[in-house]
Amino acid sequence: MQHRNDPAAGIETTPEFERFSQKNDIFTRAFWDKTVQTQKTDSFFASYRMEAIPRRGDGFSQKDFALRNASWLISDIMADRFSSDGRREGFQAPLSNDTPIADQKVKFKSPAQASSDIKKVASFFGADLSGITTLDDRWLYSKRVDARDMSEKDIGLPEGITHVIVLGHEMDYEMVKTYPSALGGAATGREYSHEAAVVMQVAAYIRNLGYSAVASMNDTGLVIPMAVQAGLGEYARNQLVITPEYGPRLRFSKIFTDMPLEIDQPKRPGVAKFCDICTKCVDACPVKALPSGAPKVSEDISTIKGVKKWSSDAKKCFSFWASLSSDCAICMRVCPFNRDFTQTRHKLWLKLALSPLRRLALWLDRKRGGRLKPGEWWSR
Amino acid sequence: MQHRNDPAAGIETTPEFERFSQKNDIFTRAFWDKTVQTQKTDSFFASYRMEAIPRRGDGFSQKDFALRNASWLISDIMADRFSSDGRREGFQAPLSNDTPIADQKVKFKSPAQASSDIKKVASFFGADLSGITTLDDRWLYSKRVDARDMSEKDIGLPEGITHVIVLGHEMDYEMVKTYPSALGGAATGREYSHEAAVVMQVAAYIRNLGYSAVASMNDTGLVIPMAVQAGLGEYARNQLVITPEYGPRLRFSKIFTDMPLEIDQPKRPGVAKFCDICTKCVDACPVKALPSGAPKVSEDISTIKGVKKWSSDAKKCFSFWASLSSDCAICMRVCPFNRDFTQTRHKLWLKLALSPLRRLALWLDRKRGGRLKPGEWWSR
Repeated sequence: MQHRNDPAAGIETTPEFERFSQKNDIFTRAFWDKTVQTQKTDSFFASYRMEAIPRRGDGFSQKDFALRNASWLISDIMADRFSSDGRREGFQAPLSNDTPIADQKVKFKSPAQASSDIKKVASFFGADLSGITTLDDRWLYSKRVDARDMSEKDIGLPEGITHVIVLGHEMDYEMVKTYPSALGGAATGREYSHEAAVVMQVAAYIRNLGYSAVASMNDTGLVIPMAVQAGLGEYARNQLVITPEYGPRLRFSKIFTDMPLEIDQPKRPGVAKFCDICTKCVDACPVKALPSGAPKVSEDISTIKGVKKWSSDAKKCFSFWASLSSDCAICMRVCPFNRDFTQTRHKLWLKLALSPLRRLALWLDRKRGGRLKPGEWWSR
Repeated sequence: MQHRNDPAAGIETTPEFERFSQKNDIFTRAFWDKTVQTQKTDSFFASYRMEAIPRRGDGFSQKDFALRNASWLISDIMADRFSSDGRREGFQAPLSNDTPIADQKVKFKSPAQASSDIKKVASFFGADLSGITTLDDRWLYSKRVDARDMSEKDIGLPEGITHVIVLGHEMDYEMVKTYPSALGGAATGREYSHEAAVVMQVAAYIRNLGYSAVASMNDTGLVIPMAVQAGLGEYARNQLVITPEYGPRLRFSKIFTDMPLEIDQPKRPGVAKFCDICTKCVDACPVKALPSGAPKVSEDISTIKGVKKWSSDAKKCFSFWASLSSDCAICMRVCPFNRDFTQTRHKLWLKLALSPLRRLALWLDRKRGGRLKPGEWWSR
């Protein structure tokens, strides 16, 4: 069961390991599991249509919901294209191909050359990070769901997939500061819309080269371990992958392909060691959904079985989203790694945080992570 | 017929002025006008599908077409959504609304406040520039075309539109250097895809505020005079709007709305005066499609009637595109204003070019504008 790169990636599985069925993710459970679904979770989903939104003060006015809901538009269009077949694409089924695989295959000098081209193209289309790993089927969902009735369906990846290209998409730094708010949710929605466009274009490029390529967002498999294996960052206490370039402020998409590519190696520069001494996300979470202890196996049905890791209480987490009528990312906002690393002083802080002086770095961070008032975002 | 802002915008019309019918644009003529349509123009359009692409050397290999064609994907998806109704959206019909106008209107303190919010949101969604003007119906097409048979149809703007928001989308500086090439065409395609997403999201935001908003790309009206009236830049000899921020390296989209907004004023900092003494684009055009003299009224059926301006020979221009199987933008590449204005030395050059010392600026530019070999773009 163990993968040769597991120690390098910081991945630890137990004999109880089982692939995750998408039916059990908290968003899907909100449609079939009466212990999760409430009037509030129904209102949460309804609030993404303007006629159903609640209105209550700074960050939750019509203007804020207007922006948040508009930000999801491109993702919504892609998700809805084949909804009559029960495919909520990008969420509960991979994105359908609009273009065929070219008859003729472009040959590359080497897998390294092919990977370099793919990364250049990913960056050209607007991906902020990219990494490549071999397909590790532990992270594929055992089943996807049919969005009409939440019944289980085969995930439907084509035969012969060997590699996964993971793309990182930065969430807006200023907007993330306004979490929790409906306005802050625009940082999430904009990146979903953006990632849909980028991942579909990169996948189309690969098909145009003559190789198979399936564009994927939250569907088909768990992207977090793939992003870690592809060398993009380390898994952290707040359930996010923390990267040296953007800290935790990233969304990830992925492409499944049979193109012969050179892979990247996982890197552990010291984020997890920092998390060992830091509980800022745990302390800031209004519903105490994050774990304060050491990584361990979780019994929660919304968590993959048999993986020793920091796991959240997804039900508590989502109940808070439902009460807000918007997604929450306080744990991203308050994370000491949530900084603008283009600035020298933050680069220096990063060096310190990843060094044995991490306690000093944590102390230096003690006054950061406050919320920007949504009204101030608008008036800046 | 004249608009009060015409002198400030540098717009000059004659009594022969007539609104332009989209049927006469060169791309539409390539489907019905036998003096334009050839085997080569048919191959040009077919080359946007991989099975039909020609392959011939640097910048025109399968890899280059693969990237160019992938770059159009999001624009293609939006354009094709309602093609069975003859609506090629974004090109020969405005983009359909996916979301309704909210029942309740958000009230703003002032039109200035509303405009400031819209510009903030446009920038958040990724527009590089934005400007606002009142609707000047001289620039609306007299008719659009039905993409099934190129017959004329009403443009179909809703009642009550008062304002146009013009968004600018920067084309990639390095990629533009590779024109003419299929690779360079990816700079165009990527921006079409990007502008489709951005303009649709901004329009959705406005509808969510309770106002009418129609997202538009090349359809419905001529965006160039609207961009000039909205204060984004000056019209130039190479048929492009030249902006102080990105020179000529921009695409434009627009939103028609009834939202009460503060408008921008046209600005003429001196680009046209520079064009008066510069013919770099004319000299570089392989088919001599650009005008070397002073602005004048054109008799070409693909040019709007009764407007005194620099006009290209659209048929010559497009015949060159057809021979390349890709779009050409040599006139953008060689333009002395095609610079990276984030760099101080280019900012200084701009000051010089817009001053009475423009001849010196032109002389300083004499060795710039060369082509970057497509192979070098890939290996950088």
